[in-house]
Amino acid sequence: MLTLYSFGPGANSLKPLLTLYEKQLDFTPRFLDPRQFEQHADWYKAINPRGQVPALDHDSNIVTESTVICEYLEDVFPDALTSDGAPLRPADPYQVAQMRVWTKWVDEYFCWCVSTIGWAFGIRDIARQMSDQEFEDHLKNVPIPEQQVKWRRARDGFPQDILDEEFRKVRVSVERLEQTLSRQDYLLEGGYSLADICNFAIANGMNREGGYFADFVNPTDTPGLIAWLQRINERPAVQRMFAQSRSEFSRPQAATQSA
Amino acid sequence: MLTLYSFGPGANSLKPLLTLYEKQLDFTPRFLDPRQFEQHADWYKAINPRGQVPALDHDSNIVTESTVICEYLEDVFPDALTSDGAPLRPADPYQVAQMRVWTKWVDEYFCWCVSTIGWAFGIRDIARQMSDQEFEDHLKNVPIPEQQVKWRRARDGFPQDILDEEFRKVRVSVERLEQTLSRQDYLLEGGYSLADICNFAIANGMNREGGYFADFVNPTDTPGLIAWLQRINERPAVQRMFAQSRSEFSRPQAATQSA
Repeated sequence: MLTLYSFGPGANSLKPLLTLYEKQLDFTPRFLDPRQFEQHADWYKAINPRGQVPALDHDSNIVTESTVICEYLEDVFPDALTSDGAPLRPADPYQVAQMRVWTKWVDEYFCWCVSTIGWAFGIRDIARQMSDQEFEDHLKNVPIPEQQVKWRRARDGFPQDILDEEFRKVRVSVERLEQTLSRQDYLLEGGYSLADICNFAIANGMNREGGYFADFVNPTDTPGLIAWLQRINERPAVQRMFAQSRSEFSRPQAATQSA
Repeated sequence: MLTLYSFGPGANSLKPLLTLYEKQLDFTPRFLDPRQFEQHADWYKAINPRGQVPALDHDSNIVTESTVICEYLEDVFPDALTSDGAPLRPADPYQVAQMRVWTKWVDEYFCWCVSTIGWAFGIRDIARQMSDQEFEDHLKNVPIPEQQVKWRRARDGFPQDILDEEFRKVRVSVERLEQTLSRQDYLLEGGYSLADICNFAIANGMNREGGYFADFVNPTDTPGLIAWLQRINERPAVQRMFAQSRSEFSRPQAATQSA
């Protein structure tokens, strides 16, 4: 039995969610509502004491960390292939190493700069809807000190020098993706893999007009990246993921905003 | 043919170096001298454009990122076992996931706080031995902007609030290790693995009297961690690694100081 706890098809939550859809595995999606702070509720911290999504429950074994969950699913279900009849992790170890350089880069660099901007402008509204007392009560339920700092900054406003630095990193990230995607269809020469899924989780929607990142990701400046986003969005598993998540989860905006 | 480019048996360089010794693989160690900035020399940036060690050359395929190299060696040489007759990555996927949570944590948290303290007090001397002109000339050879910032801070002095925060994270890290190592011999219940190697790479030497971390790591506060460090230091592969590195590398201090 597989149950995935997540915020739905956006950011880190998207990585294992899409992996499950791509591998055509039966699983129960369990969407938490970040606007209700369900990830910090006691029932969920009994599953993941760090109070973070996603988490996978596989026959009562709990696996955490989005990228680790994706590789775990490849380890446990190597014969569960995509609709193209392919695995999500290449057979060749050198290609696997390249894949891991990409997924590691998402976790250590790309995800953080995009996420900070999301916290500064998206989570801000959640953080500011509370009274001072509600906010302080809420912070007590956040188990990770660094997350407490982010909540406080989201409410008070992030310092401008931090925002400038994070936007610089977003630009570096986008340029790095474009450099590869201007010359090949997927991040690995061999084709679609977890490297794409983990980067797509962060990059999808960055080209939205009027969004924070439209000056960085658009058809003029990053045609390769735009074509790659479209290519992935057209995949049957991706379309199934978005359609089923919408029907099962009544708050799609909340699901795609949280990092 | 395997060639490992590294700074020797310390910090991130230690991870693949010890993995090669544990797996009893034939390889050529190629030690770079951080005091001569060899990692930023053109000949090395032709191997790793990021100008960072370690990097593995396997039959002319270059693999970078210390943790990625360790898993790569398991992928390519699954039958190369330790002197205990064991692999460094468990057979059970759930244990592998736990291993990856540990190695990811080293790369995203533990390594950074320890490394920043090392930069603030260790690299400082290297950065200050140069004239202003030499320093600026050197910075031009550093390809990663974040590394340039670290070099500048090492020379100018790190802001105290950054140092306080990093020391806090060191304490959190040490407590996390002790929590596990006070009840079991290795980080995974199943025994010695890449989880231990990657954490040992950062933790080894933290208990040195008079060092920056002796107040955190010592027999009174962290008996489990101390016993684990000793247990690993007694392993034949570890002793061979230190002895051979000393004989092949004429600057052992330089090799263990750099992060």
